[in-house]
Amino acid sequence: MTVNQRIVLAARPDGNVKPQDFRLESVALEPLEDGQVRVRNHYLSLDPYMRGAMNEGKSYRAAQALDDTMVGGTVGEVVESRNPKFAVGDVVVGGYGWQLYGQSKGEGLRKVDTSRVPMQAYLGVAGMPGVTAWVGLNRLIQPQAGNTVVVSAASGAVGSVVGQLAKAQGCRVVGVAGGPVKCQAVVRDYGFDACVDYKAGRLYKDLQAAAPNGIDGYFENVGGEVLDAVLPQMNAFGRIAVCGLIAGYNGESIPVQQFRHVLISRLKVQGFIVSEFPDAWPPALAELAQAVGEGRLKYSETISKGLESAPQAFIGLLRGENFGKQLVQLV
Amino acid sequence: MTVNQRIVLAARPDGNVKPQDFRLESVALEPLEDGQVRVRNHYLSLDPYMRGAMNEGKSYRAAQALDDTMVGGTVGEVVESRNPKFAVGDVVVGGYGWQLYGQSKGEGLRKVDTSRVPMQAYLGVAGMPGVTAWVGLNRLIQPQAGNTVVVSAASGAVGSVVGQLAKAQGCRVVGVAGGPVKCQAVVRDYGFDACVDYKAGRLYKDLQAAAPNGIDGYFENVGGEVLDAVLPQMNAFGRIAVCGLIAGYNGESIPVQQFRHVLISRLKVQGFIVSEFPDAWPPALAELAQAVGEGRLKYSETISKGLESAPQAFIGLLRGENFGKQLVQLV
Repeated sequence: MTVNQRIVLAARPDGNVKPQDFRLESVALEPLEDGQVRVRNHYLSLDPYMRGAMNEGKSYRAAQALDDTMVGGTVGEVVESRNPKFAVGDVVVGGYGWQLYGQSKGEGLRKVDTSRVPMQAYLGVAGMPGVTAWVGLNRLIQPQAGNTVVVSAASGAVGSVVGQLAKAQGCRVVGVAGGPVKCQAVVRDYGFDACVDYKAGRLYKDLQAAAPNGIDGYFENVGGEVLDAVLPQMNAFGRIAVCGLIAGYNGESIPVQQFRHVLISRLKVQGFIVSEFPDAWPPALAELAQAVGEGRLKYSETISKGLESAPQAFIGLLRGENFGKQLVQLV
Repeated sequence: MTVNQRIVLAARPDGNVKPQDFRLESVALEPLEDGQVRVRNHYLSLDPYMRGAMNEGKSYRAAQALDDTMVGGTVGEVVESRNPKFAVGDVVVGGYGWQLYGQSKGEGLRKVDTSRVPMQAYLGVAGMPGVTAWVGLNRLIQPQAGNTVVVSAASGAVGSVVGQLAKAQGCRVVGVAGGPVKCQAVVRDYGFDACVDYKAGRLYKDLQAAAPNGIDGYFENVGGEVLDAVLPQMNAFGRIAVCGLIAGYNGESIPVQQFRHVLISRLKVQGFIVSEFPDAWPPALAELAQAVGEGRLKYSETISKGLESAPQAFIGLLRGENFGKQLVQLV
């Protein structure tokens, strides 16, 4: 008998997420039914959207149920199969959540080629975060060569891809990140033209210096003061893709003071969630995996070890303590 | 010698607009040059956008110059012509501003047919405000039959047209206006399904009762607390056309508290100015004039008499004291 370990939502967070909001459980796996496949998860992806799902009430996704396994993307290896579409040894990306094993009829599982791209990259740069960057940039911002594109959370799994894709399209790319270490990496590792440290206390002026011709496209992951510094610097007909508002994920009020610039500069501001652009996934995934394989698309990872480390790693992610894609290694 | 009277911007307003910010001047008109036309203006249009133009600095239009004639739309009659395209007696819509006479080579003048539509309607329902409503609704909100569309400043020159056009397209239409008198007129005269009085102190709940299926499109003229009441009630993929933010025109801070719903409900929020949709004008003007002529499109006017009354009428407009289109009669 195989014993599975999983982490469930024990309580809805009241403001900041605490370790006690989670509970680790051990449960025996049922024997496989006909058509089912069993996957040993190697990596779990931690993403900011999970914070929204932990709240009750209106969000863009169903609330995470109490006492249920925390949702999340996973990549792992098929260890047992009663489904002709999957063979033992196949590496598959899925959404089994915070647990060591996944077991299902294979719906939503996607086999991936690990010959040139390591499996965990399919949870980041060559997976959902990468496609998020691709959709927000190419479908919403739609930059022209020569445009200035600003990206918040620029060192993150999504932001770093946005910047590299925009740069490859001939844009001037300016990141916003927290602290000199992240900022340095954004320029040095990801090739942004400049990066503004929002913790340095000169956000508006530093942004102005980094984007002297104004801002044509803004990829928003953060909200709050970053958005307020960007809005007055947007050029006419600028586009803002709202991908995340991590500044408010713990329930903080994040009023937008400079909303009037939506009118003054005739901006288009659009919220989006990547799962609602199904037609974008195949071309985006193909392009991203190829660019990773050829070394043109860089990425970084912060990997915490062991399922039991996931709650603390997630809390760190919400505080911006990670660098690049936050993963939990489960083997 | 014909003496013209005009009102110029004497000082940029510091907060609220005051009568002393304007100055009435008398100046002799130059004799007509070859190619020129002289128009006796019959009506001047007063519009909220003028408040923005009175400020220095970044706006969506050039700032109104100090000591220059206040900008504005006019309709009047050609009284002298040295231009073969215009004959004495022609009724023309133009942008001669706050003055009794206009004189030019006729650029931007448009002859209008007053057989079924009174001339001053070409400054309102069948003119720029009407086209503004048409563009915001048809190009930005793009409602489907059965959608719920909310309009702020619903009794105004723009809002009243938005509601009637949306209603004709099979939408449920909810207005927001200030006070029971305006609200009653919005429902009775303009045929909205409901109207919420934002001064009654129950904005969020009253809106919820009036839009029980949520809001699919919002035509924004106001900003501030109205926008904050609307945002959490927007349905997924809702569209917000930002036409005006009159709540902040005097420099008041109007922070948006509920911006997070742009993400939660994947909204598309777009600021616009009607002059930037030139291709929309011909079909919109034709449709609006026809609907007015056939009595299908209702409108109201508040007419103040005499050029010297314009400053006070404008101040009243900014306070919401007018009902429907605010005009100044100049003859």
